[in-house]
Amino acid sequence: MEFNAEQIAAYLQGQVEGDPKAVVTTFAKIEEGVPGAITFLSDIHYEHYLYDTKASVVLVNKDFQPSKPVTATLIRVEDARACVARLLTLYQQTMSQLRVGIHPQACVAETAQIGKNVYVGPHAYVGENVVIGDGTQLYAGVVVEERATVGENCILYPNVSVYHDCHVGNRVILHSGCCIGSDGFGFAPIEGGYEKIPQIGNAIVEDDVEIGANSCVDRAVMGSTYVRKGVKLDNLVQIAHNCDIGENTVMSAQVGVAGSTKIGQWCMFGGQVGVAGHIEIADRTRSGAQAGIAGKVRKSDQVIIGSPAMDARQFARCSAVFKNLPELWKDVNDLKRAFKNK
Amino acid sequence: MEFNAEQIAAYLQGQVEGDPKAVVTTFAKIEEGVPGAITFLSDIHYEHYLYDTKASVVLVNKDFQPSKPVTATLIRVEDARACVARLLTLYQQTMSQLRVGIHPQACVAETAQIGKNVYVGPHAYVGENVVIGDGTQLYAGVVVEERATVGENCILYPNVSVYHDCHVGNRVILHSGCCIGSDGFGFAPIEGGYEKIPQIGNAIVEDDVEIGANSCVDRAVMGSTYVRKGVKLDNLVQIAHNCDIGENTVMSAQVGVAGSTKIGQWCMFGGQVGVAGHIEIADRTRSGAQAGIAGKVRKSDQVIIGSPAMDARQFARCSAVFKNLPELWKDVNDLKRAFKNK
Amino acid sequence: MEFNAEQIAAYLQGQVEGDPKAVVTTFAKIEEGVPGAITFLSDIHYEHYLYDTKASVVLVNKDFQPSKPVTATLIRVEDARACVARLLTLYQQTMSQLRVGIHPQACVAETAQIGKNVYVGPHAYVGENVVIGDGTQLYAGVVVEERATVGENCILYPNVSVYHDCHVGNRVILHSGCCIGSDGFGFAPIEGGYEKIPQIGNAIVEDDVEIGANSCVDRAVMGSTYVRKGVKLDNLVQIAHNCDIGENTVMSAQVGVAGSTKIGQWCMFGGQVGVAGHIEIADRTRSGAQAGIAGKVRKSDQVIIGSPAMDARQFARCSAVFKNLPELWKDVNDLKRAFKNK
Repeated sequence: MEFNAEQIAAYLQGQVEGDPKAVVTTFAKIEEGVPGAITFLSDIHYEHYLYDTKASVVLVNKDFQPSKPVTATLIRVEDARACVARLLTLYQQTMSQLRVGIHPQACVAETAQIGKNVYVGPHAYVGENVVIGDGTQLYAGVVVEERATVGENCILYPNVSVYHDCHVGNRVILHSGCCIGSDGFGFAPIEGGYEKIPQIGNAIVEDDVEIGANSCVDRAVMGSTYVRKGVKLDNLVQIAHNCDIGENTVMSAQVGVAGSTKIGQWCMFGGQVGVAGHIEIADRTRSGAQAGIAGKVRKSDQVIIGSPAMDARQFARCSAVFKNLPELWKDVNDLKRAFKNK
Repeated sequence: MEFNAEQIAAYLQGQVEGDPKAVVTTFAKIEEGVPGAITFLSDIHYEHYLYDTKASVVLVNKDFQPSKPVTATLIRVEDARACVARLLTLYQQTMSQLRVGIHPQACVAETAQIGKNVYVGPHAYVGENVVIGDGTQLYAGVVVEERATVGENCILYPNVSVYHDCHVGNRVILHSGCCIGSDGFGFAPIEGGYEKIPQIGNAIVEDDVEIGANSCVDRAVMGSTYVRKGVKLDNLVQIAHNCDIGENTVMSAQVGVAGSTKIGQWCMFGGQVGVAGHIEIADRTRSGAQAGIAGKVRKSDQVIIGSPAMDARQFARCSAVFKNLPELWKDVNDLKRAFKNK
Repeated sequence: MEFNAEQIAAYLQGQVEGDPKAVVTTFAKIEEGVPGAITFLSDIHYEHYLYDTKASVVLVNKDFQPSKPVTATLIRVEDARACVARLLTLYQQTMSQLRVGIHPQACVAETAQIGKNVYVGPHAYVGENVVIGDGTQLYAGVVVEERATVGENCILYPNVSVYHDCHVGNRVILHSGCCIGSDGFGFAPIEGGYEKIPQIGNAIVEDDVEIGANSCVDRAVMGSTYVRKGVKLDNLVQIAHNCDIGENTVMSAQVGVAGSTKIGQWCMFGGQVGVAGHIEIADRTRSGAQAGIAGKVRKSDQVIIGSPAMDARQFARCSAVFKNLPELWKDVNDLKRAFKNK
């Protein structure tokens, strides 16, 4: 790729400040800028990098005022972060060819319905009565078991598994090793061991979901486990049977949600958060990393952290005292002694 | 499927209360009941759903006394939860056909011994000198490496890996992406880096074990890592080298057990628990979610939680004070000041 | 295998104490010693096993002085742990044949460059323009996507995925289900949902790295995610986009590192540690299990634990008081009351 600042500004409806002919051949983060790179400044914490960057062009928000001289050419845009995402998308679309066709070493059951412009990679398996929508790409080693459906324009990266009878919506991205519809964890104690409770429900992943590598969404014991429209799950996330993850909720890596829990819309979970089973979490709850959410979160828009989880500011105050507990202990013992001696 | 209440009651040796001809065509959870569904009430916390459920038939424990009028037909049984498990098992056996045969796109080494009625799915690989027992099903993409054995009537879901020389018992279920026998994590520091300590032992998974999606059981450095009879591991669980997980112990998702630890029988671990290496955990220990078990648990039947883990009731009391630490801090400082001023 | 104590001592440049003709046919841990086994004693905590072991030969450090009579034959060596690693390596090299050749059921793109003595197992896929170095083994079901490179003498175990454009160095071991180069977790909020930020960078795994089963290393949004020379990652570890994991750093199972974090050299992380994004961790930092490292670690060689993480000794002291918080609470309330009554 090769563009100049003027062309990029035109595409983004931005304004050039500096050399309109500055050439751009690659992308870089602002702290790793090299000549020929375009980068962006959105978070003001990174402003100091702007004055030293070797990048040729920097996207900035339109009202940004530099506090020192800048050598790079600036392009002022409405929202620098969103604009860089648009450029990256354009770049990726240009660079990556859509894969189409059923590889001769793939295995597609005769009863499967395959849409138009579908890619089924080598050693991928599409089972009996599966439906694959138009434009969907199943990479090498993907397995879609019987009666499952995958919508349009999805990407299932290598070695993804979709179990029987599960449904994946449109424009869904599932990364390597991700598993949709494994059995929920249900056992009834019997004499001398446990009896498996068959998990006859399924898992439903709605439109515009992205799920990270080696994450797991279990099928329901009865009914369905839901990952709603627009949800984004990072790597190694666990969603147990009969959960319902609300629209546009985002979970960082290694989060685990126990069975039958219903999570609201637009929630955000930091890494390694654990959520207990059979509870409800209100909309727009934001949970800090490693929180242990043991009970219902009834009020929406809260920020929580800690295990067990509590209000984040309260946790910060409590943690500050925790660090001084030995001193507090000593103070109390000094007081007790002093009081006794009085 | 279509049955009526009378037929189901006869199968379960229960008693109908209501319409014996009520028709059942599906299963549902009590809070999601629809006409034609059978459901169950076992946990009394869900009793309120009984009076509103649209399900046609509800299994209840035989001594259950409703506190309000019920429109659904009841079937009174010895143990409602166990009976629903029996029905689900029957349903699943009826619905799912056992898969048999070696798929033409599978790869089975000539030296492998394959039992009767075995299924080897597309792109599955059975290595040299592997033994697969009667009735076992290896789904698409499963890999069983050389000299490993898998017993009778097992199911290995897509993309499971069993490393060389490992042993899997009878009636074992391994979910997608589960990995048995990867190298234990052992390195000796040397000049300028680490030297790998070869892991020449194996991993042994005994009868009636179920292991969840993307869980890992490492092989021993020498000897064997054991997952004993009847153990149930949820998704994304880590069992390190030379561990011994006692019979009928149950671990929820994302639990991790460090190397050489011996865990007793009938233990139960909540999600995301971590257990240190080289320790022993007594039988029937129950650990709350996210606990960090750093030292031996000598006494059986304890309930523990926290990181580091302690008695669960004690943890609850300590946590209650933790939430009030800023207030406690203030009180102590007030006392100090007041005392000084006296 | 069959050797005697004398032969082993000669190989290790050690000295026999006891029967030089003692026969060795297998390895065992000292607590599991059987006749015919060689074992070792390095950690003095295990010394009591020495006096009861049924092993025929025990490697000990050259200056070790037994405090009771020993029946086993001893071989005194410079470093017993290192010597057992050497023996195990020798044993493994003898036992395991290097696999060579492209399996007829593998799929290798015509544009791929395959080195000498490479093994590509059944149902493995090597994509367009991939480069595979000499002596590297790709086990069954491995997928290496277009333009990725894998160096010399690597082992990629079953069902590993390497995404397009990623680079894996020499002598790297990737265990089953491990995923290199999945998309980093980046989304920009837009009206009604999130827009994916394309991740156009890659992931680079340098020489002599070992990564455990089902671990994930995400590709960078721009530039590269680095796992530096000699790093060892256990199973189920998450390395987010744009991280840089310093040379010879070791992470136990289920550790998660959030995006853009730079970790120093020779660090050691216990299991389930979480590290926040956009921070730096100094060289030789040692973090206890389950720590939550929320902020920069500026000073090297610290030992930290807790969530949020703090100095390990301080955490031990604080935890000790935490266990007694109910008592402390009562003391303070007693003091308040007593003070009021004065």
